[in-house]
Amino acid sequence: MRERDIVFMNRALELARLAYEAGEIPVGAVVVKDGEIIAEGYNLRQTDKLATAHAEILAIEAACSKLGGWRLSGCTLYVTLEPCPMCAGAIINSRIDRVVYGIEDAKAGCLGSVINFNSYPFNHAFEVERGVCADECAAILREFFAQRR
Amino acid sequence: MRERDIVFMNRALELARLAYEAGEIPVGAVVVKDGEIIAEGYNLRQTDKLATAHAEILAIEAACSKLGGWRLSGCTLYVTLEPCPMCAGAIINSRIDRVVYGIEDAKAGCLGSVINFNSYPFNHAFEVERGVCADECAAILREFFAQRR
Repeated sequence: MRERDIVFMNRALELARLAYEAGEIPVGAVVVKDGEIIAEGYNLRQTDKLATAHAEILAIEAACSKLGGWRLSGCTLYVTLEPCPMCAGAIINSRIDRVVYGIEDAKAGCLGSVINFNSYPFNHAFEVERGVCADECAAILREFFAQRR
Repeated sequence: MRERDIVFMNRALELARLAYEAGEIPVGAVVVKDGEIIAEGYNLRQTDKLATAHAEILAIEAACSKLGGWRLSGCTLYVTLEPCPMCAGAIINSRIDRVVYGIEDAKAGCLGSVINFNSYPFNHAFEVERGVCADECAAILREFFAQRR
């Protein structure tokens, strides 16, 4: 873990809080290039009424728009929760170099929990760092589901 | 294979042709509900400069917009090429019931080629029909890559 990872994950946590306040499962994501945040996203599945509106997809799309192309080489994605198959697939498709996540998703995570995409011969592999700000990332999800019950 | 599957796959092939004409890898997709096409998409990755702009994602997003929600229960997705991890993940996330595809994608396919998502305990599984209009779906890709060389 690098010190900067905590700084960027804290921003992803702030975005997760915005999702929470919108009544969404609280997940936030940022894309960083050359030490700067170039794009952000948070889960808006219910609000946008779109199955694809996960934090990572929105952040990746915003990063593509910002950089003017579909390749996000040189970028790191920070996300509070381990990516699902759709989002882990978008990471492959956008050629992101490194993914830093907070906590595991035992039900859908594709960077080691249900599947580890990096163990398969896709045309892109990426570095993965797990457990950054894990307690905070878990706490906001726990709070959300407790309040919904 | 059902007779209707050929009709809908032929429309997906027409959409793949539009991708071809836009200089994109020719893949087309349609979403069908109650026997009618409710949404369409074709690969626009280069044109839109977006890593996520695959045929299936665009069709799924259009179907969500059409139906006014993220759940596409009762829908069938037709796509000329076996879905990649991102698109197969979006199929899980949107709760599509059935997927019909033309040809296998040995490099990225997640409905049996590289991985079979239905073999893993995700929170949704779906019926899969393979090889519908396979010759035509293969031909347009072959033509595209031959012309690019």
